[in-house]
Amino acid sequence: MSTHNLLVTPRTTLGRHPERGSFDRATIYRILDEALVCHIAFAVGDQPVVVPTLFARLGDTLYIHGSAVGRMLRTLSAGIEVCVNVTLVDGLVFARSAFSHSMNYRSVSVFGTAREVIDPGEKLRALEATVEHVARGRWADARRPNGKELAATTVVAVPLGEASAKIRAGGPKDTEADYALEVWAGVLPLTIEAGPPIRDDRTPADVTTPAYVAAWKPQRH
Amino acid sequence: MSTHNLLVTPRTTLGRHPERGSFDRATIYRILDEALVCHIAFAVGDQPVVVPTLFARLGDTLYIHGSAVGRMLRTLSAGIEVCVNVTLVDGLVFARSAFSHSMNYRSVSVFGTAREVIDPGEKLRALEATVEHVARGRWADARRPNGKELAATTVVAVPLGEASAKIRAGGPKDTEADYALEVWAGVLPLTIEAGPPIRDDRTPADVTTPAYVAAWKPQRH
Repeated sequence: MSTHNLLVTPRTTLGRHPERGSFDRATIYRILDEALVCHIAFAVGDQPVVVPTLFARLGDTLYIHGSAVGRMLRTLSAGIEVCVNVTLVDGLVFARSAFSHSMNYRSVSVFGTAREVIDPGEKLRALEATVEHVARGRWADARRPNGKELAATTVVAVPLGEASAKIRAGGPKDTEADYALEVWAGVLPLTIEAGPPIRDDRTPADVTTPAYVAAWKPQRH
Repeated sequence: MSTHNLLVTPRTTLGRHPERGSFDRATIYRILDEALVCHIAFAVGDQPVVVPTLFARLGDTLYIHGSAVGRMLRTLSAGIEVCVNVTLVDGLVFARSAFSHSMNYRSVSVFGTAREVIDPGEKLRALEATVEHVARGRWADARRPNGKELAATTVVAVPLGEASAKIRAGGPKDTEADYALEVWAGVLPLTIEAGPPIRDDRTPADVTTPAYVAAWKPQRH
């Protein structure tokens, strides 16, 4: 196993379209870092539950905090098996046949055992990473969590040891006979765009809009 | 139980921020119809799995097809318990304190038993709804699925009987003392925007870009 590639396991082996799969660590981390929201799935007894939530990546660990985590931890105080997915939608793919329509996307799935973060230092670093994940530079400006807030925040960590990316890019792929059809085909690219910032009325008049708000873009590296 | 509101069940009762919850059918359906991708969670033995996928709503039923469904059905041929979540990210909420940072979103969670769609007529209507969900008007232009394609496509239906919406909107909410801080606070609205369509090289020269591509927007009603 190289340090660049994650080990392929039965859980991360792709059943369909294996050519879209990647186990390259840098690819996986880029997708995670660009996404704002992840979906974390866990079982409550026999019931599968999936919850959307903010998150952050620090090195080889994914951190999740807040209500999703609260619900999860109510079900198990020890480690709990989770599956986390992050999906970036890059475009709509219009093929000639309805059957060949598709979507361009970059997606990551992580399988692992989530553990509660107890150490206050690790907890604080996880929250810093979460704020920085939303807008790089914000942590330096915001008031830091106090002891009471830190105690009220549950954080869990999911190791990034078992993960895979799945990526579709490029134009439509039709069966040869369909290319003769008088049908528009192509890709409509989609991006997440920020509108003009809405300043809270009670922001002091001398405080200007920070660059990480005014020029916000999804994080790419 | 009114026809406008879905029944509140233990699975759809919100633990945190119950004021953000809604069981209004129209609200739930609007969020589902605007979203492009859903996340469907199910169990493979003890392992929770969550998969992103296209979907469609037709009346009180959610339809999902493709590889996610294939994997799910490999685990159980009868009905399978699922949880489906759809999340629209509307904005980043910058509070004075790191602790009060949040996100504006509209989210729907559905709990139910997924059944495989066998009837060819229902299957075709589900695929039509999926194509129309991506871009309203496309079904009339695309070549319809033939018998072989229809047979190769697995579709499952999830009833929308047990679902709830969770919505956060508006500005940051800080603790009173924090309003004196010299920190920019407010909301950065986020939207999904379409870029210029990328025409497939092999589209016949006399075929113009359809309006549902050139003027595409997330579906709102």
